[in-house]
Amino acid sequence: MTAARGRGRPRDPETDSAILRAALELFIERGVEGTSIEQIAKRAGVGKLTVYRRWSTKEDLIAQAVEQTVSADMVPTPGEVRDLAPQDIVERALKTAAETTASPAFRALVARMMGAAVSHPRLMAVYWKHHVLPRRELAAAMLRRAQQEGTVAADADLDVLIDMMAGAVTWRVLQPDPPDAAAMLGYLKSVYRQVGLYRDAD
Amino acid sequence: MTAARGRGRPRDPETDSAILRAALELFIERGVEGTSIEQIAKRAGVGKLTVYRRWSTKEDLIAQAVEQTVSADMVPTPGEVRDLAPQDIVERALKTAAETTASPAFRALVARMMGAAVSHPRLMAVYWKHHVLPRRELAAAMLRRAQQEGTVAADADLDVLIDMMAGAVTWRVLQPDPPDAAAMLGYLKSVYRQVGLYRDAD
Repeated sequence: MTAARGRGRPRDPETDSAILRAALELFIERGVEGTSIEQIAKRAGVGKLTVYRRWSTKEDLIAQAVEQTVSADMVPTPGEVRDLAPQDIVERALKTAAETTASPAFRALVARMMGAAVSHPRLMAVYWKHHVLPRRELAAAMLRRAQQEGTVAADADLDVLIDMMAGAVTWRVLQPDPPDAAAMLGYLKSVYRQVGLYRDAD
Repeated sequence: MTAARGRGRPRDPETDSAILRAALELFIERGVEGTSIEQIAKRAGVGKLTVYRRWSTKEDLIAQAVEQTVSADMVPTPGEVRDLAPQDIVERALKTAAETTASPAFRALVARMMGAAVSHPRLMAVYWKHHVLPRRELAAAMLRRAQQEGTVAADADLDVLIDMMAGAVTWRVLQPDPPDAAAMLGYLKSVYRQVGLYRDAD
């Protein structure tokens, strides 16, 4: 290990994941303003330079840490979008989406990410580019198919529709008395039904 | 002044507004975690006890400071809801709503309020009760009237619809490349059109 590290700084996956885990924990506990590369290095049990070798700013590091966490979400894969009806995609994703979005970890992350959006725009910019935007493109593809099938209005502004869906969920989980997974399941059905992406069983 | 203050601590409106202004500035600059009653007192040029006499926690103080700032918003007065068609209310409010929500101050406030929602739930709870909830009730009354008039679906979940409208706007202003007032005007029309509260001019 020591010898290998000497040659051209190969990346150690375990070190990377310890750093990412520490970054995520500190971000949730203290927000972006209360978190420093130094604290992240200390909690991960590595030197500050080890972190800087991999990430040049704490915003990039935190953005990647958040990306790796938010894996189960409400957006389909490219294959699903190609092969399945939009309502079937939504139906299949609902249970996991409800569990994810009702979890305390999701609420805490949403609050911290939104809280950093104006004071630390680079964090949101990196997260937007690498995480949000690809998912929005898949959601838009699904909505276009629903437009062709007539369940979403042909003249609807899809970017606005996506904001309305994502915005409703993120705003709902930050309100007092946030829903548990069962209540969130009903909530998501309501949101998708309103947009034209959910049909009630006969 | 000194004599008057000695008798039963009458409230001095100028002192109150200096404290509220200082609380708002510090909250926007540093977030709830970076703001203390001590710093607020110092910036307002008053003693710490003067602040504590009026507000028992920084969350209550910040919530009131935010409430006083967010005055022009997208929700009608009770009189307008009673007397006007929902589409006319929306039409009249659009320009001010676009200017307010596109302003840097609004973006900063939204980010800070959402950022504090999980770490400092009391702040959101106070703001929710005194500011958000009364406005949601007016919005719901407007939506019920639109349901009677047939532009909003009779079976729509109004709480979800309100979340979709408010959530879209708050999420949009936190995204990279936020809209200016002109772009926001078009955005708001899209949101209200989608819900059934905006009709394009013939």
